[in-house]
Amino acid sequence: MARAAVTIASGATWQEVAADRQAYRDSTIALVEPPLSEISDIPLNTIPLAKQVLTAEEINITESTVEDLAATIAKGELSAVTVTKAFLRRAALAQKACNCVVELLPARSLARAEFLDKYLSENGKTIGPLHGVPISVKEHLGVKDLDHNAGFVSWVGRISPEDAHIVQILEAAGGVFHVRTTQPQSLMHLETSSNLYGVTTNPFNTTLTSGGSSGGEGALIGFRGSCLGIGTDIGGSIRSPAANNGLYGMKPTTLRLPVGGWTATMAGAEQIVPTIGPLSTSLEGCKIFIKAIIDAKPWYKEPSMLPFPWKEEDFFSKKKLKIAVLWDDGVVKPHPPVTRALKEVVDKLKESSNVEIVEWKPYKHDLAWELIANLYFSDGGAQELAACAESNEPLRPLTKYILTENPHVQAHSVDSMWAACVKRDNYRAEYAAHWNSTATSVSSTGELEGMVDIILCPVGPGAAPKIDTAKWWGYTSQWNLLDYPALIFPVDKVVVAKDGEKTDYQPRNEKDKYNWDLWEKYGAEGWKDAPVSLQLVGRRYEDEKVIQALEIVQKETGQPFVTYT
Amino acid sequence: MARAAVTIASGATWQEVAADRQAYRDSTIALVEPPLSEISDIPLNTIPLAKQVLTAEEINITESTVEDLAATIAKGELSAVTVTKAFLRRAALAQKACNCVVELLPARSLARAEFLDKYLSENGKTIGPLHGVPISVKEHLGVKDLDHNAGFVSWVGRISPEDAHIVQILEAAGGVFHVRTTQPQSLMHLETSSNLYGVTTNPFNTTLTSGGSSGGEGALIGFRGSCLGIGTDIGGSIRSPAANNGLYGMKPTTLRLPVGGWTATMAGAEQIVPTIGPLSTSLEGCKIFIKAIIDAKPWYKEPSMLPFPWKEEDFFSKKKLKIAVLWDDGVVKPHPPVTRALKEVVDKLKESSNVEIVEWKPYKHDLAWELIANLYFSDGGAQELAACAESNEPLRPLTKYILTENPHVQAHSVDSMWAACVKRDNYRAEYAAHWNSTATSVSSTGELEGMVDIILCPVGPGAAPKIDTAKWWGYTSQWNLLDYPALIFPVDKVVVAKDGEKTDYQPRNEKDKYNWDLWEKYGAEGWKDAPVSLQLVGRRYEDEKVIQALEIVQKETGQPFVTYT
Repeated sequence: MARAAVTIASGATWQEVAADRQAYRDSTIALVEPPLSEISDIPLNTIPLAKQVLTAEEINITESTVEDLAATIAKGELSAVTVTKAFLRRAALAQKACNCVVELLPARSLARAEFLDKYLSENGKTIGPLHGVPISVKEHLGVKDLDHNAGFVSWVGRISPEDAHIVQILEAAGGVFHVRTTQPQSLMHLETSSNLYGVTTNPFNTTLTSGGSSGGEGALIGFRGSCLGIGTDIGGSIRSPAANNGLYGMKPTTLRLPVGGWTATMAGAEQIVPTIGPLSTSLEGCKIFIKAIIDAKPWYKEPSMLPFPWKEEDFFSKKKLKIAVLWDDGVVKPHPPVTRALKEVVDKLKESSNVEIVEWKPYKHDLAWELIANLYFSDGGAQELAACAESNEPLRPLTKYILTENPHVQAHSVDSMWAACVKRDNYRAEYAAHWNSTATSVSSTGELEGMVDIILCPVGPGAAPKIDTAKWWGYTSQWNLLDYPALIFPVDKVVVAKDGEKTDYQPRNEKDKYNWDLWEKYGAEGWKDAPVSLQLVGRRYEDEKVIQALEIVQKETGQPFVTYT
Repeated sequence: MARAAVTIASGATWQEVAADRQAYRDSTIALVEPPLSEISDIPLNTIPLAKQVLTAEEINITESTVEDLAATIAKGELSAVTVTKAFLRRAALAQKACNCVVELLPARSLARAEFLDKYLSENGKTIGPLHGVPISVKEHLGVKDLDHNAGFVSWVGRISPEDAHIVQILEAAGGVFHVRTTQPQSLMHLETSSNLYGVTTNPFNTTLTSGGSSGGEGALIGFRGSCLGIGTDIGGSIRSPAANNGLYGMKPTTLRLPVGGWTATMAGAEQIVPTIGPLSTSLEGCKIFIKAIIDAKPWYKEPSMLPFPWKEEDFFSKKKLKIAVLWDDGVVKPHPPVTRALKEVVDKLKESSNVEIVEWKPYKHDLAWELIANLYFSDGGAQELAACAESNEPLRPLTKYILTENPHVQAHSVDSMWAACVKRDNYRAEYAAHWNSTATSVSSTGELEGMVDIILCPVGPGAAPKIDTAKWWGYTSQWNLLDYPALIFPVDKVVVAKDGEKTDYQPRNEKDKYNWDLWEKYGAEGWKDAPVSLQLVGRRYEDEKVIQALEIVQKETGQPFVTYT
């Protein structure tokens, strides 16, 4: 049990609460052994710090993938304790580099690692597919006996009585929870900025955001302080940090992975259903994570989850993978590095005989944003604002943007909310019809044939945004509104020599202008070393198909095109 | 296209609108050929009327099951036209017997039947698994170009632009829609009573209700004016009419069968999700219906439906079917005939080596009713009441019961509705834990073993209720709150000699007293010939398992114990 927090209930100011939380965090980091050497300056690109501070073995361990680590530990070539210690040290360093940690869990993780090592040695087998693999977890998810504040100063002091359901399952599968990570105030930013911990930055370029709301995970895993983490996503909160940090990240279709034991405002809301999912340094890491959870049949404990097993089917044994490319959502045009990376991938795919490429015409993505922004806060944002007001903490800039300056937020009556849900459902049906219209024929039994399998698209209108500028959610929230599974993968990074050429573009609306002006202002140099990632999207509950599609895309293109530096 | 309706928009009173709708209904019945002979008296049990009025061939056809009819038509031994004509005449007679018809569809059904006969003769194969099978449909579902009023006088005059999605699918599978059936005002009774059409009665005993809200279907199919019909269920509306009329009826888990094109108040509400499903004279009829729909992949057109195929698995190849018996929900004790029939079934099952019988302890079914009754009308019933008030039609007694006299109805704010949804979810999780606690062991991989497969229970606290007394929904609404699939099957009928003995029982609460007083007042004689049915319930999305369980139960017990008279 952690020491009791200073709280507003005990009369502290929000600043005092925040200072205490940070001091507590630092105290957990001070437990790392051996202690980290002092770091005088944080460079623009923090990744090389690791090689200055950590041992070669630690580097080797922490830059391994989930699947390699699991295999090495299972073979007894590395102990879970050694692995955990290496990740604890690198996570501590990640905190210094980009401010992504809420607390380290050295006691818990090392005790668990010891148990696992003993288990393996006594039983000659692993306890599960994640035996000894370190896993990081967004503060949004409860951890037994620890504080659970969801990013609100006023909630500091709430203690989780037990681990979140997903934490229980992953631990039973062998995972070792070593660190909890930051999230933004309100959980509703595509960045990570709170009054409790300040701003989490991007490890590849500290002038940029790590994304959000699972931005602590993004930065930490981007820095390799973890190889697998749990994020949550209602508008892009897994995908933006995955993309901004060159990671794999999946937002599955809703109601497949269990959410019990997370905390947030608006409990009981179901107009837009949030999801939970993995961020990882490998695609296989995401897959092992999802499969381990579904194999545990979470629906018995959490009956809102759907009891359908993971499909082991080969979706492309009899047909080519048909990918539709969405270059631009028609609302906000992506910055040149995104379009360039997308073009490189598409050009390679066009050469493949296993893939067919067509164009995806976006269907009213501007309307989609209005609909989802109207349904996110059906109480007009009252619960969010109350949670902030209770401690007198100020609203962060992006909280204002999404809550108080957002023209689509409405304090609904039950009646008007139902009407808004009808509009949502109509849009979903129209989008489904739009997808159905890609069929090239109808079989004798009425089956649509030759439809697009997957959409390939940007994750946002640029690489990781400059701090406090991540305003256009449409490239990710689109798929929350539709409840389509979406998978992020790294492609390249911003390269000034390739991306720096001036372009002449007349923005088509205010949102587009805001985004394009940023590019004009900072140019490619402003995004130096920033990862560039893309997104694959499938239809509802085609999660397995989306993953297989990425396996094919990677095989056909040889992505990612960058190495880790 | 039907002739234009008289409506309140054109200045008519509610009585004039109702009279016009009834005159229109009669005009569709008058089209039946050859015309029905006059019937002077409607007997208490109307079933024998058929033999007085219809030909032996018509009796033979209309008392065939879905599977036999489909097979006979497919072999060319009966034409679809002959079958349709027979069902049209029996449906017309059902209207005279128990007032269950909104309109016959002779032109549409005969044209379709002619097409199907031609198709079969030209192609040497059927168009689908329901080729030539007549299907009836609750007015709740839209039929192209026809009125669509959901039981409200004020809504008369609304015309469906197209067939409901499920009607489209079933017609494509070969179904022939020959009649639309009655429903109650508000769609929220377990009886069928409206100001448009009056009261639909039970064909086996006209002092009783046919049930509701799909009570037109129940009476019609009970009378054999159809062998397969479409009902809808949010609290028992498929199951009460199925049970009251000695039929099979299934409420599947939500979001498997498409609902597009139905109409009701509170569109967009999702706190308690309504379902759609079959009523049939055979279990196989229900199964063919469900499978035909899921095989048509309704999720492509209606993306809120879950894209999971029908499971063809044998659930009991490696284990016994473990049935838990719920004798009494702890709130309202069932009348003696129900308990007697349940005991007969259980006694036979106890002799089987393929079935294991245990007791089911109900978990807070009184709370379950409070929760669901609070969420049905989250606007406090405003939309329902407004739809009634618009025409000045009076509230029917059971509309008052469920809406204005119901202590659990609340005009929610968005905030209080979310809180109520949290309570609902907590209850669902507690019930799941209750079910999980029936496990006898946990496997090495953490899997719960030896759990109950199926609950066997009453469908209501008695056989078909006396008119306007169907007040305790708990035996059916329980499974809507939990979203568990539930399947109704006929067992026996009330037999005065068996069920007439006086019992000494002290009711435990007001609801229980209300129900027991009815039994005291009318005795077994008051339910003469009433069917007695039971219910099998599975966990969420175990629809296929529930059907297989009933196949086993029927094989082991030889049910139903009655023949059709």
